[in-house]
Amino acid sequence: MARSEQGFDWVTFLSDYGHDDVFVGVCKGVIAGIAPHVRILDITHLVAPQDVEQGATALATAIPFMPVGVHLALVDPMQDKAARGIAVATTDGSVLIGPDNGLLSFAWEARGGIDRAVEITNEQLFRDTVHKTFRGRDVFASVTAHLAKGGALDDLGGAIAASSLKTLAVREAVVDDDHVHAEIHAVDHFGNASLNIARADLEAAGMNFGDTVEVRCNGRTLTIPFTPTFGEVAPGKLTLCEDSFHAVQLAVNAGRASQELRVNRGDPIVIARVPQQPAGGRPAVTT
Amino acid sequence: MARSEQGFDWVTFLSDYGHDDVFVGVCKGVIAGIAPHVRILDITHLVAPQDVEQGATALATAIPFMPVGVHLALVDPMQDKAARGIAVATTDGSVLIGPDNGLLSFAWEARGGIDRAVEITNEQLFRDTVHKTFRGRDVFASVTAHLAKGGALDDLGGAIAASSLKTLAVREAVVDDDHVHAEIHAVDHFGNASLNIARADLEAAGMNFGDTVEVRCNGRTLTIPFTPTFGEVAPGKLTLCEDSFHAVQLAVNAGRASQELRVNRGDPIVIARVPQQPAGGRPAVTT
Amino acid sequence: MARSEQGFDWVTFLSDYGHDDVFVGVCKGVIAGIAPHVRILDITHLVAPQDVEQGATALATAIPFMPVGVHLALVDPMQDKAARGIAVATTDGSVLIGPDNGLLSFAWEARGGIDRAVEITNEQLFRDTVHKTFRGRDVFASVTAHLAKGGALDDLGGAIAASSLKTLAVREAVVDDDHVHAEIHAVDHFGNASLNIARADLEAAGMNFGDTVEVRCNGRTLTIPFTPTFGEVAPGKLTLCEDSFHAVQLAVNAGRASQELRVNRGDPIVIARVPQQPAGGRPAVTT
Repeated sequence: MARSEQGFDWVTFLSDYGHDDVFVGVCKGVIAGIAPHVRILDITHLVAPQDVEQGATALATAIPFMPVGVHLALVDPMQDKAARGIAVATTDGSVLIGPDNGLLSFAWEARGGIDRAVEITNEQLFRDTVHKTFRGRDVFASVTAHLAKGGALDDLGGAIAASSLKTLAVREAVVDDDHVHAEIHAVDHFGNASLNIARADLEAAGMNFGDTVEVRCNGRTLTIPFTPTFGEVAPGKLTLCEDSFHAVQLAVNAGRASQELRVNRGDPIVIARVPQQPAGGRPAVTT
Repeated sequence: MARSEQGFDWVTFLSDYGHDDVFVGVCKGVIAGIAPHVRILDITHLVAPQDVEQGATALATAIPFMPVGVHLALVDPMQDKAARGIAVATTDGSVLIGPDNGLLSFAWEARGGIDRAVEITNEQLFRDTVHKTFRGRDVFASVTAHLAKGGALDDLGGAIAASSLKTLAVREAVVDDDHVHAEIHAVDHFGNASLNIARADLEAAGMNFGDTVEVRCNGRTLTIPFTPTFGEVAPGKLTLCEDSFHAVQLAVNAGRASQELRVNRGDPIVIARVPQQPAGGRPAVTT
Repeated sequence: MARSEQGFDWVTFLSDYGHDDVFVGVCKGVIAGIAPHVRILDITHLVAPQDVEQGATALATAIPFMPVGVHLALVDPMQDKAARGIAVATTDGSVLIGPDNGLLSFAWEARGGIDRAVEITNEQLFRDTVHKTFRGRDVFASVTAHLAKGGALDDLGGAIAASSLKTLAVREAVVDDDHVHAEIHAVDHFGNASLNIARADLEAAGMNFGDTVEVRCNGRTLTIPFTPTFGEVAPGKLTLCEDSFHAVQLAVNAGRASQELRVNRGDPIVIARVPQQPAGGRPAVTT
């Protein structure tokens, strides 16, 4: 359907290129010149400059909702040396394209896992002049378009082992008896601060929807409810709840949690159980 | 033409989702998965977070220029409880989709008025898991795509009376003899500050193009010309003029009125007539 | 291929309209209403408001990578009076459309040079009501769509001489013996600061890749390497190198040169040769 004998109808596109320059438009122009039938779906271009981990997280968040296609992702810092370019075919029929710096590594499982991978080395598919600091245009956009118009994955370069692909370490939260050491994973457009934990992590430490929990971050300790969504607390109130992608987040109903808590991505945070006093003030077990 | 037996070719899309997250892309991915033929025309995604009135104004401003299609609008604050979802068919053949919180209420007249409306309740058309805080993805994008691929309006849910739809109050300016009490309605990308008045309101208070008027706002009183456009005053000069959507605005030619006046959306403002001295200093009527 | 008897498949679009208003969406709506088959490729809409020169530079940078089509560019300040509207056919089969204020003047050479030009005067192709301060919607979008659906260039208005078109002065760098007087031409999303010089200008003053050069700007003098790309210096280090569009730029590997140097577009800068000491501390010529 979306994939035909002639290639792919869809290219999705994520980058740290921003909208203030012509970078995104130029990559689209290159693709349009080679594979004019392709439709491009922008995931986001406001990944923080050169922040591979943030890009990997954003891509993994969005990709379950994307049609089958070529998924082009470009956050390509080159601090030391340029990562090799890779094309990773997934079992759903998609291909992920980008630098082998971990950017794609949270995403392929969501497309059914890796089928096979190649290193992008065939210069005949690149633009005539390749500028090292804009491989997005000269290499990645060009080979994306080649696949979209029906070119074979093997045209791009030789096969490489899936085990050789760079993966980013997932920063796991640590459950320690009645509390969880976590961190701020992402702050969204509405100021909601998502953590690197799921509801199950809190349940493992004895915290359930409806409970009151203690949150320690930025030198402050706050006692707040743990609710299904931020809609269960009054406007202006802070709550710990689930975000719409199944992570746990700090949110203020009709407000900005990131501003109230002054937290940023990467900040450590501890969520702890608050011992419940039964009604009447006496522990239930003593009865 | 734009509407076929098979549904709609166009979806227009307005939201407060911003571009820094994957929210907009994810909604487009959901639509592409269900109705791949659809073309999406972005109106804007930078409505201030949860500002229903600003969203309603932006939608009403843009919608006269849009093709027939499904017009998806998402500013969905949930402060108290979530507004019901509605689909409003207009007599031009379009359908407006969004929460019933007033967001759509300035727009339907521009599409010929309401034909009929349904409440969106048919969960079979939603995504398998609906997250309450991202109905844009799980409910609204999904039913938008259903209509676009030819589904009937009645598939979405039961008919509701047009009179039951929430409408936002229009903040009317008050004409009081020789002056008008108005407010700043919107500040645009160029710093122009549009008011909630049309030229006719000023004419009712005796002010016409070419006159000098008195503007009182933010504790200041300014005497400025009332001109057809900001092009009639010298660069750097403030003027009261018509904006390109038939509202009256404060503008600085080659400058930013919002910065010079330090005004924001919602600020009150008074525009008053300045008595004209005829040439020669004597009232013309005495001759 | 991209151009058919029926007109054009592609419209590219650059403006200073921003994303916070509905301006871009409204222009696209007008085009969709007249020529629904057209696909619009956004170059950028974040040219600084009313900055014709920045817009001209961005357009010239991007346009070599665009498909054949109608290239719509809108930075239209109107400080004094509105520039006439022009449509410039280039020898590659494209048409550039915009105000005759120099905005298009860096771009036509990249499309093979001017074939012929007309002044846009045929009001029958405009929207019914033309607002002087939004010609983008009422004039330029409308005639763009007319061409895209197969209308003739001559429908737009009478022929004008290429020599009558306004061109912007290129701010040339001055090579003065062993140093070059240049200026900051553009600062990109990553904080890289491009100059109005090419590598050849530095070579003319005796500076080559691998040399150390002296940079004077903002009252500071810095001694830095001149390298092919910023990837050749350590993270955090400043270098003079080539950008990906063949200009010379100041860049910090994994950092923001514009922030470190506190430079903005238009700032003057001097690049000077540093006399090389041969190994051993004695000039080679004396041996």
